[in-house]
Amino acid sequence: MAHVSIIGTGNMGEAISSVFTKGGNTVEMFGKADADKPITGDIVVLAIPYPAVDDVIAQRGDQLQGKIVVDITNPVNFETFDSLAVPANSSATAVITGKLPGSRVLKAFNTTFAGTLAAGAVGPLTTTVLVAGDDADAKAALIDVISRGGVKAIDSGGLKRARELEALGFLQISLAAGEKVPWTGGFGIVA
Amino acid sequence: MAHVSIIGTGNMGEAISSVFTKGGNTVEMFGKADADKPITGDIVVLAIPYPAVDDVIAQRGDQLQGKIVVDITNPVNFETFDSLAVPANSSATAVITGKLPGSRVLKAFNTTFAGTLAAGAVGPLTTTVLVAGDDADAKAALIDVISRGGVKAIDSGGLKRARELEALGFLQISLAAGEKVPWTGGFGIVA
Repeated sequence: MAHVSIIGTGNMGEAISSVFTKGGNTVEMFGKADADKPITGDIVVLAIPYPAVDDVIAQRGDQLQGKIVVDITNPVNFETFDSLAVPANSSATAVITGKLPGSRVLKAFNTTFAGTLAAGAVGPLTTTVLVAGDDADAKAALIDVISRGGVKAIDSGGLKRARELEALGFLQISLAAGEKVPWTGGFGIVA
Repeated sequence: MAHVSIIGTGNMGEAISSVFTKGGNTVEMFGKADADKPITGDIVVLAIPYPAVDDVIAQRGDQLQGKIVVDITNPVNFETFDSLAVPANSSATAVITGKLPGSRVLKAFNTTFAGTLAAGAVGPLTTTVLVAGDDADAKAALIDVISRGGVKAIDSGGLKRARELEALGFLQISLAAGEKVPWTGGFGIVA
C-alpha cells in the first residue's frame, strides 16, 4: 500500500486517483487553490499539462526531493498540433529529470486516455499503463501499485524510452483529434 | 484491384503478400536473385530492412518513378538497440522520400508484426495498419486496397507522422525483445 499525492484535479488526475484508490492506496489531491498544502505522499503524480510543470517545480521542488515523481505529460505543441514541444531526441520526462535531480522521476499514464484508465478497459482489453525510467526500484514500486488497481502495467524500459512513449501518446491524441479513434478507445496492448 | 510488387521475401513480405492476395489483388514478389526482373506493380512495397533500402533505390530508382512506394521499415540501431538510425526529428520515410522525389512514398505496415498481419488479429482485435504520407490520393488508394484484405487501415496523418509510427514500431519491437509482449501480440487499436 502506498500514499499517493496527485497534483492536478482534471480528468487524468481523477482517473489516476481512481486506479490508486481501487488498489487500496490512500490518495491526496492538489488543486490550484492548494499551493500551501504540503505534499505527504511517497509517490507524487504530476497530473498537469506540460506547460504547468515548471511552476510546480518552482513551488514544490524541495518537497519532491527523494520522492517517486510521475510525469504523465504529452508535450504536444498546441499551436501547430504537428510536433512536440521538447527536443526531438529527448522527452518531457528527461527535461523534468534534469530539473529534479533529487527525485526519482518516471514516465507513466501518458499513453492511456482518462476514459480508458477510469474504465480499466480499452475495448475488450484490460487497460495497460506503460512505465519508463532509470530508477529500477522506483519503477518496480509504481508498477506494483498500479497493478493492484485493476489495470496492467508494463516496464517499458529506461528513461530514453520516454521519447517513444511520448511519440505514442502524441500519435494517439492526433488520431483521436482527427476522429480516427474515439477518446474511449485508442491503443490497447495484447501481452 | 491493384497489381502489387513486393521487394523482399521475408516474414513481413510474405505477410503483406497474404493481405493483398486476400483482397483480390495480384502480387509479384522479388527476392535477392531477381535483380533483373522488372517491376510491374502500381504499388511497390519495400519489405526489406532499412539498411538494404539504398541498394534497392540505386538498382531500381528509375522503375519506382510515379509509383506508390510503401516503406515498412523500423530503422532500429541494431548495435545499441536503444535508438533509431535516422535523425531524431525525421524518419526513414522522410529520408526515402528525399531519395525518391518522383515516387509517391508512404509509411505503412511498420507497427504490425508479421504474425498479427498474417493472422489478421491482435488478440481479440482486428489488426489495424497505420498509414502516413503526404500524397492524399496515394494514401487513400493504399488504405482502400489494404482494407479489402481482412485487416483495417487508418490514415494516421502526413509524412511527419512517420516519425511517431517509427517510434511506435521501435517501442513495440523493444517490448517484444524484452519479452513484455509476444511477437504474436503487441499494440492493437480500438477504433
